[in-house]
Amino acid sequence: MARAGRRPGPTETREQIIAAARRAFAEQGYDGATVRGIAAEAGVNAALLHHFFGTKQQLFVVAMNFPIDPAEQLPLLLSGPPEQIGERVARLFLALWGDPAGRAPFLAMLRSVASNEQAATMLRQFMVRTVLARLAEARGVPPLRVTAAAAQMIGLVMLRYVVQAPPLVDATDDEIVELIAPVLQNYLTPE
Amino acid sequence: MARAGRRPGPTETREQIIAAARRAFAEQGYDGATVRGIAAEAGVNAALLHHFFGTKQQLFVVAMNFPIDPAEQLPLLLSGPPEQIGERVARLFLALWGDPAGRAPFLAMLRSVASNEQAATMLRQFMVRTVLARLAEARGVPPLRVTAAAAQMIGLVMLRYVVQAPPLVDATDDEIVELIAPVLQNYLTPE
Repeated sequence: MARAGRRPGPTETREQIIAAARRAFAEQGYDGATVRGIAAEAGVNAALLHHFFGTKQQLFVVAMNFPIDPAEQLPLLLSGPPEQIGERVARLFLALWGDPAGRAPFLAMLRSVASNEQAATMLRQFMVRTVLARLAEARGVPPLRVTAAAAQMIGLVMLRYVVQAPPLVDATDDEIVELIAPVLQNYLTPE
Repeated sequence: MARAGRRPGPTETREQIIAAARRAFAEQGYDGATVRGIAAEAGVNAALLHHFFGTKQQLFVVAMNFPIDPAEQLPLLLSGPPEQIGERVARLFLALWGDPAGRAPFLAMLRSVASNEQAATMLRQFMVRTVLARLAEARGVPPLRVTAAAAQMIGLVMLRYVVQAPPLVDATDDEIVELIAPVLQNYLTPE
């Protein structure tokens, strides 16, 4: 029965899981999708899926081809001198988008989000749960201020790396950080 | 056959073409829309459309120009108390994106810019020529600062109206303006 070619190999199984995860996140949102449901959809054991991919958050990061896991970045942003968190956030965004390979999945996501509401919902739920809420709580500032800081950086990397606005392309990272970091610092500091 | 009222005049034809172009770009993105399809949608000959508007790219620029005609908006932003230009910029962006009909062409533009370099180039040239350079000159600030202000607002309307981040959706326009206007004011003021 288990002829060669009938039983999927590890790579094939991995691809099936990722495909199932993408469908589930798109159809049910980040909050609605479950590791158990994704495992069932992919025809694998939930424990196996968890063993290979970890939490739902980690599975999402892999499925979306994110170059980084925000769960790993957040402690780095929050460590170090509190009065320099604005600068650390600015440098992280510039580093992530400055690498063309790292930029590709962000661009794909941007297209999806602008094209369909399912993608927007999925990304929104993921961002709120894994980044915005945690950062707001850790810094003791309202989520609105954290979101305003995110808006500044998202707009900036879009204009620098996608639209390629000359003033941002011609400026050095240091010049941009000098201009932007105080704004981020203010947003991320309690009034 | 050619009864009065049956054959549209030149102005009406132009409006029909622009409306059809906006719909096509909004629904299919820049790559998906075709001059032939837009002409068919507008009920005109493709050669006629080409005669009046040129290439698809030129038609796109004309169609995207419409909701944010900078020749009309820039004097309004620059008039009034100089110490409130940050607030006027913030309110203009919120008004433009807050209207779903006005938002459609911006979303089409966003998809195009994220998908292909020609669209990014086109938008960049348009932005620099009609907005950034003039605003920088009028305010006596470096273009880098004007671009940072644009980044703040572009990121903000994206997170509010596309991603629909809850803190920005739940906030009133006044709360957002109160938070953002001082940042814009600072960027648009000589050091």
